[in-house]
Amino acid sequence: MDLKQQLKPFFEPETVAIVGATKGIAFGAGLPLCLSENGYRERLRLVNPREKEIIGLPVYPDVEAIPGKVDLAIVVVPAPICLSVFQACARKGIKAIILEAAGFSETGPEGKKREEELKDFARSAGIRVIGPNCIGLVNTANRFISTQVPQESLTPGPVSVVAQSGVFGNIILDWGPENGIRFSKVITIGNRMDVGELDLIEYLADDPTTKVIVLYLEGVQNGRAFLSLAARVSRKKPILILKSGRSEVGRKAVLSHTGSLSGDDAIFDAAFRQCGVIRSDDFYGLFDLARAFSVAPLPKGKRIGIITSTGSIGVQTSDACVSQGLSIPDISERSRNEMKKIAPAWMSIRNPLDVGPSGLFGDGMNVILTDPDLDGIIGIPVLPSFVAKEFVRQGVPPTSLVGNLSKELLGPGGKTLLLAPIGNRAWIEILREAFGDRVPIISSPENAARVMAALARYREYLEKTK
Amino acid sequence: MDLKQQLKPFFEPETVAIVGATKGIAFGAGLPLCLSENGYRERLRLVNPREKEIIGLPVYPDVEAIPGKVDLAIVVVPAPICLSVFQACARKGIKAIILEAAGFSETGPEGKKREEELKDFARSAGIRVIGPNCIGLVNTANRFISTQVPQESLTPGPVSVVAQSGVFGNIILDWGPENGIRFSKVITIGNRMDVGELDLIEYLADDPTTKVIVLYLEGVQNGRAFLSLAARVSRKKPILILKSGRSEVGRKAVLSHTGSLSGDDAIFDAAFRQCGVIRSDDFYGLFDLARAFSVAPLPKGKRIGIITSTGSIGVQTSDACVSQGLSIPDISERSRNEMKKIAPAWMSIRNPLDVGPSGLFGDGMNVILTDPDLDGIIGIPVLPSFVAKEFVRQGVPPTSLVGNLSKELLGPGGKTLLLAPIGNRAWIEILREAFGDRVPIISSPENAARVMAALARYREYLEKTK
Repeated sequence: MDLKQQLKPFFEPETVAIVGATKGIAFGAGLPLCLSENGYRERLRLVNPREKEIIGLPVYPDVEAIPGKVDLAIVVVPAPICLSVFQACARKGIKAIILEAAGFSETGPEGKKREEELKDFARSAGIRVIGPNCIGLVNTANRFISTQVPQESLTPGPVSVVAQSGVFGNIILDWGPENGIRFSKVITIGNRMDVGELDLIEYLADDPTTKVIVLYLEGVQNGRAFLSLAARVSRKKPILILKSGRSEVGRKAVLSHTGSLSGDDAIFDAAFRQCGVIRSDDFYGLFDLARAFSVAPLPKGKRIGIITSTGSIGVQTSDACVSQGLSIPDISERSRNEMKKIAPAWMSIRNPLDVGPSGLFGDGMNVILTDPDLDGIIGIPVLPSFVAKEFVRQGVPPTSLVGNLSKELLGPGGKTLLLAPIGNRAWIEILREAFGDRVPIISSPENAARVMAALARYREYLEKTK
Repeated sequence: MDLKQQLKPFFEPETVAIVGATKGIAFGAGLPLCLSENGYRERLRLVNPREKEIIGLPVYPDVEAIPGKVDLAIVVVPAPICLSVFQACARKGIKAIILEAAGFSETGPEGKKREEELKDFARSAGIRVIGPNCIGLVNTANRFISTQVPQESLTPGPVSVVAQSGVFGNIILDWGPENGIRFSKVITIGNRMDVGELDLIEYLADDPTTKVIVLYLEGVQNGRAFLSLAARVSRKKPILILKSGRSEVGRKAVLSHTGSLSGDDAIFDAAFRQCGVIRSDDFYGLFDLARAFSVAPLPKGKRIGIITSTGSIGVQTSDACVSQGLSIPDISERSRNEMKKIAPAWMSIRNPLDVGPSGLFGDGMNVILTDPDLDGIIGIPVLPSFVAKEFVRQGVPPTSLVGNLSKELLGPGGKTLLLAPIGNRAWIEILREAFGDRVPIISSPENAARVMAALARYREYLEKTK
């Protein structure tokens, strides 16, 4: 059975057993109701010797008492009894288990021993396991979830995430919707006693709804295998990574957190670059990258134009671009002449282009977006809320102030545009709603510079490995 | 007349003339109504030869036609007629002008000449000028404003800002309220032909409502004078700075934006450090610093404890702390024993302390906050929204999950605590509302590390210069 077949029950189970299903407030307690609301009521099998009924469904004393076939078991019982649950699953013919329980290698030698036993048993029984110490996964395509998540998080999108930490998985699902990130699949692997990032990268590489693969790892299982797989998959889809454990303290903490060992950081850095993997140093930056890589065409070169209505921020952004290896060339003669026709005397026509309070941001954007001497544009639209409100009052959509950001101009083969608006939330929401599907809205101008550089480097990688 | 007396009419004018007041949409058009709503209706004098009446107030053809004394003139007419307005102001006996018009040194040699003429005239007439190319100022104490700002931005607070760019001033006023920043005074100085950052730092140093001075400059007027003033004022109040113009391109852009020249960046960096000035590289980081310096006591040393419910973020934060020169020591024997009493078997009790899904964040915080071996704490409370909602449903305030963050523990002489929550907006708002007045809510765990290091360095500066 190939990998895709083996992993299928995790993402598209026909019937799901929840072993350790319970009422009240406890880890995993909300899951039956949540799965039921997502359309899985008929396919749910609840198991707990101390319960008779939960949300109106019968509860079985053990998995073997379940009538009919079970595709996947989600196991949320305490660590010491996991082995007996696994044995029952094997007898029931279950081939896929999401083990959410903690209390294994992350706690020390005793837990490690327990994990090894489970692992040996699963392997001998031909059972694939995600976990332990995780929250399993979310598949927005069929709304299958193994953890409770808000409904808004299940709007399908292009970003798939593989994370070690279960809580991290929960956070991003919670945080995504109001920050313009939509997911295809989110998988947390915890101590990854069996299914690890290698299997999942391989799986996501062929997943048609995944456009960008995001990894949050505290170390990789097998460095050599990871790099060769990543180099291959990167040619097809961008792989973004947030890897922690840079400092000595950080590495010790990683060891205690998921029991995995992370290697020398500088080596990772160089290796990632060589295989086209894009690394971020922080959480928000990671999702800025995800937004950009799932929406924007790659820049044809490193010549970046900046347009803003506050010169000071333009200067900051120029600095950030230059420090990222991008160039901020003069704008073309043509653009200069176009701008001269409309600009007031006080405006200095250059790159970065600061339109000040002229109200010419949109016109300036239209000029600079078609400049033949620029490969990418960072737009920093700044609109005080009273101005936005005044325009709304007069029936002018505030988006008309940003320029003609047409699908044709910004589609495949078009110019790379990143918007890093500054101002209050309402203004940023207006932009996200109007353009979010074709223009990445980035969290800060400095991050826009980092993202633009990453897009340009990725294009170089693709060309070099063609 | 001393500096305080000279600058008083800018911040506390008895009567204000707006020269160039107009109807409709134009730069400065909303100001009369806005000032009127802020309680200045009786003290407003509008000037424009082409208008008879605006918002029900008489409009005078020129400043000399205004009956009675005028303390301050806000000038929003085109650059070429500014000299004649200045001359009229001088004849009227006006000693303070906010010149908001653009079209001066930022546009090239001709504008520079025009600015020089104005400057010479103002000096000879004994008129102090803020501007040109700015939006003047906001004083929340008496709600005096020389630019239109949302009412929410006028809630008095501890942060005063001196910015060169007018648009920057508008943005931060717009952005502040929903991001937990409250202002005392915001002054934009544009091309600073007369009043500059030196005057304003001096003024703010003695301003009782200003606890933190934030500077956004693209270069300083007089490096030597700046450093000696900053070293003196820093001993009294923290000075935070966002200075752009790091790269060559950035420096050229600065020149065109406000006509000021910025020097070698590394020199600035070293000099700032020596005189206790705290520098930020980006906008959001600057206001994280502002939040922290206006609320938190300074840490007594560099030993930092981290508590989180997602180990991966704890690792990230440890890395960031170490790279900032902070240390992440083991927690004390006492804390370890306290935690052992309450922690489940799977929890590893160390620093960073990852409480996972145990629900023990609050208890862990209480232990670590009183640990004698730690000088500062970074708390990263993470709560998926469904959990927060469940607690709210059951009448448990979600804030009770964060620990006993009492005023006694966190007041002067207490422990330094920074909170860097991750999750959706509702969760962050709950924390801001409950604790924002005594605990800085920082925008990311990485920034919390930077902020903690800055607080520790500032304390060292104070001790060294005592």
